[in-house]
Amino acid sequence: MSIVVITPEGAEAAAEYARHTATALPDMDVHVWPETGPLEDVTYALVWQPPAGVLGTFPNLRGIFNLGAGVDGILRDPTVPADVPLMRLADAGMGPQMVEYCLYGVLHFHRAMDLYRRDQTAGAWEPRPFVAAEDRRVGVLGIGTLGAQVAQAIAGFGFKVMGWSRSARQVEGVTTVAGRDILPRFLGRTEILVNLLPLTDETRGILNAETLAALPAGACIVNAARGAHIVEADLLAALDAGQIRGALLDAFEVEPLPADHPYRAHPGIAITPHIAAQTLRLEACRQIVANIKLLEAGRQPQNRVDRGSGY
Amino acid sequence: MSIVVITPEGAEAAAEYARHTATALPDMDVHVWPETGPLEDVTYALVWQPPAGVLGTFPNLRGIFNLGAGVDGILRDPTVPADVPLMRLADAGMGPQMVEYCLYGVLHFHRAMDLYRRDQTAGAWEPRPFVAAEDRRVGVLGIGTLGAQVAQAIAGFGFKVMGWSRSARQVEGVTTVAGRDILPRFLGRTEILVNLLPLTDETRGILNAETLAALPAGACIVNAARGAHIVEADLLAALDAGQIRGALLDAFEVEPLPADHPYRAHPGIAITPHIAAQTLRLEACRQIVANIKLLEAGRQPQNRVDRGSGY
Repeated sequence: MSIVVITPEGAEAAAEYARHTATALPDMDVHVWPETGPLEDVTYALVWQPPAGVLGTFPNLRGIFNLGAGVDGILRDPTVPADVPLMRLADAGMGPQMVEYCLYGVLHFHRAMDLYRRDQTAGAWEPRPFVAAEDRRVGVLGIGTLGAQVAQAIAGFGFKVMGWSRSARQVEGVTTVAGRDILPRFLGRTEILVNLLPLTDETRGILNAETLAALPAGACIVNAARGAHIVEADLLAALDAGQIRGALLDAFEVEPLPADHPYRAHPGIAITPHIAAQTLRLEACRQIVANIKLLEAGRQPQNRVDRGSGY
Repeated sequence: MSIVVITPEGAEAAAEYARHTATALPDMDVHVWPETGPLEDVTYALVWQPPAGVLGTFPNLRGIFNLGAGVDGILRDPTVPADVPLMRLADAGMGPQMVEYCLYGVLHFHRAMDLYRRDQTAGAWEPRPFVAAEDRRVGVLGIGTLGAQVAQAIAGFGFKVMGWSRSARQVEGVTTVAGRDILPRFLGRTEILVNLLPLTDETRGILNAETLAALPAGACIVNAARGAHIVEADLLAALDAGQIRGALLDAFEVEPLPADHPYRAHPGIAITPHIAAQTLRLEACRQIVANIKLLEAGRQPQNRVDRGSGY
């Protein structure tokens, strides 16, 4: 039995995952890919954005642990055996980070910081009328583990928050709606939209010309989920038309975002390099080790991904 | 008996103050300056940044109400009779706005948004290591009515907050220190400095070459108080030397900030046009009317400014 760690975060990050795991599971060999030991010995894989095809080379895999916030990449790889349990992290310290990032984004647009930034270099001085948080309508797309925390924190700060999900969910202190039919109405009342959806076949490209047009004119977007949720050309067109005032974006279809990507020079767009929520490695390893022990005992693991729904 | 409203916010804002006040005090005439009616009839003045000398033209003034967050301008005008009570607003809705602004500023630097903004146009993609809020040391200069609310909100978000004031104050949930002697040590542990001091002879220029050098290298500043708290040339020099990484500034020695002011083009500086906390007029008028009734009844008004300390 052995464990292999596969992550693009670099040697130091991989070594940290390996060290925490080896300490807690002294009977297992732990390798950092491309080191693997004998392929048939590998029973567990800890992965983030593994190269396509790699997971298919381990014939005796008993579990795959995703180290990031979305499993869409793994589900797209046809060589990953469908019967091997795939687990995501429950939170691993990502909740407070996501709350910070999304609340920052909401305040950024709520207080017109994007407009003042342009005024600064343009030589302008134009105070905008104050709008109370109670009168600002924020919509959160996706109210799973992270989304619910974010929606509650924004509501706790005084904003008028509504959460949308595919199937009905309750979040204390937040009005929630569910299903595609109500999406246009949800968008129509949303001045600042925060996206925290999982990336699935149903949510890919969910922010497109049609849905962006359903937002009120001058709406703003905070995307802390996946780049592929947004049809980039449609967002750029909506910004240029003034339908969307601004966007704070953390994730992109291609990462690193190319130096010549039109997002970079666009005055309505602020980008960050996929830092909204970084996995805290020690906490992640605690969850993974607990799950390996459950699997080895023949029990059901926590936070197993439903391959049908994609999250 | 009459009331005069003097504010540079424009006719609409002045009319709103006049309307709220006239409704609550039907026996009084209310004028919007430069209309005043007979000068000897004016008993109360509601003012923000009144032109020097104007208040001295009313011989029978019984009270001056300041509509903004600082009274330094009125105290500097030698024609304002020193025996006329001067009142400030207790809060008037400014607390939540100040919390929003200062928490935004703290998150801006905490999450390296200033650095990512520069990376965006430079074509870079460089995720910075995550630092938990619990490990981030924020210092709040000035923990009066507004400062205490801000310090508590930032502490409530998980940051390690210390508050400094001239004389000792207690703020629940926040470590506080007081006095000039301890200022260098307070600054030495502060990674993000939030300034909410009143502007007095003692605090003018408090952020200068010496105090900026007492901050740890790479510290950041959020100034939501007065421009004159900062020695502009010293801040620019500290930014250029890398001693200060960035500053979010809401107030300036000269407002509107001139189009050619060096702050505007500086990559380390973000400016906003004195919007951190805007007075909510209805709430302000409620406080003012209550105080006029106290004064007419021969009682002590609330929130009278101590001209000795300047706040």
